[in-house]
Amino acid sequence: VILAEAVAALTPKRLAGERILVTAGPTLEEIDPVRFISNHSSGKMGYAIARQAQLKGAEVTLVTGPTALAAPHGVKVIRVQSAAEMRDAVMGLLERTDIVIKAAAVADYRPKSRSGEKMKKSAAALSIELEKNPDILAEIGGMKGERLLVGFAAETQELVKNATAKLNAKNLDLVVANDVSQEGAGFNVDTNIAKLLYRDGRVEALPMMGKEELAGEILERVELLRGEGAGKAEKPGSPSAR
Amino acid sequence: VILAEAVAALTPKRLAGERILVTAGPTLEEIDPVRFISNHSSGKMGYAIARQAQLKGAEVTLVTGPTALAAPHGVKVIRVQSAAEMRDAVMGLLERTDIVIKAAAVADYRPKSRSGEKMKKSAAALSIELEKNPDILAEIGGMKGERLLVGFAAETQELVKNATAKLNAKNLDLVVANDVSQEGAGFNVDTNIAKLLYRDGRVEALPMMGKEELAGEILERVELLRGEGAGKAEKPGSPSAR
Repeated sequence: VILAEAVAALTPKRLAGERILVTAGPTLEEIDPVRFISNHSSGKMGYAIARQAQLKGAEVTLVTGPTALAAPHGVKVIRVQSAAEMRDAVMGLLERTDIVIKAAAVADYRPKSRSGEKMKKSAAALSIELEKNPDILAEIGGMKGERLLVGFAAETQELVKNATAKLNAKNLDLVVANDVSQEGAGFNVDTNIAKLLYRDGRVEALPMMGKEELAGEILERVELLRGEGAGKAEKPGSPSAR
Repeated sequence: VILAEAVAALTPKRLAGERILVTAGPTLEEIDPVRFISNHSSGKMGYAIARQAQLKGAEVTLVTGPTALAAPHGVKVIRVQSAAEMRDAVMGLLERTDIVIKAAAVADYRPKSRSGEKMKKSAAALSIELEKNPDILAEIGGMKGERLLVGFAAETQELVKNATAKLNAKNLDLVVANDVSQEGAGFNVDTNIAKLLYRDGRVEALPMMGKEELAGEILERVELLRGEGAGKAEKPGSPSAR
């Protein structure tokens, strides 16, 4: 505890005054009262970002799917289960947010209908019909205003191509791209090998590092982008752009 | 630690000499490297049974799907992910087992084919084709020999009817039936309201209690059934039946 307080006291408050919304964890999409579809996200990356942002003086809200992690100190935590619940929580907070860092691994699809009773296992085979979940990041991107948006891309192939497409499609300022098929990257491991992609086409390759360290690196880039007026300069009618 | 040692020393070793195989937790059936189907089982019931059985002097092996729980003291733990892996682990141990207590919530279905790459989210809707998993308990029931078999039934409707059908279909000696739609029962809560169903048609309703206490009650019934020769008397050619 004394060490944690010393670290907190010694960290420069470079993000003071910024209201940061971080999303983390998987979402859980129910098939029936017992079964669900989810993914291997541990939530560690988003929690690390929330913790590091709080240390840097930001006012941090963490919207998180189900994880086994403890709430970071000094961070407001909102727990949700499904993508639809995460969308509602995020959209409700957006007006009071300067920076959105979307580290959650939101399920792309959900079962079309949820059964109120546990399905009986009679059929030898069956199929689950899925429909698309709301694309939270694209929705924010379409109404970003002066906000700075950071997304993540977990890919098993064509990393830079797919991550660049995501940056453009969702109007992001920065994408943290992970090749989850690499050794030392991916879900449920404590290290990442990330590439950072910017709006101007720059690609910055980071060495393998722990999630807390990567969180610090990402937030340093966020500070720099905010210093350059990113996010703030995006809105044509904003005072800083005039 | 001293308290735990005192409890261990004071617990009568009524299951000494019994080799008990307990299964616990959910199984996790992969759709692709990122997504999976699973269920809300915490694993707490199976872990409690393994712990209590070890305290009562049994030689306990716990085969468990993914959970957030610590291995119980003195219990051999084998970790698996899918139903197919759990089946292989259980069948490999069966010959050296006297009592099987199947508390795992094994997925009934798994995706027909697992994609090696993360699915791209292009389609507005899609369906996942599922096929039946191996029915581990039925397989053991079909070759039970002198073993005592205990199963669980989690139901949201027609509890006794569905649980009785399970007892008969799988050749079980005891079924612990839970109406998971009741307040104070079900997944991810620490209490159960269980009914115990026996081969002779008896139904014993237990009051709401914690999972450790319920584990003790179940193991007491197992001791009684073993004393009456259940399991041992099932095999026509066994010495005790002659």
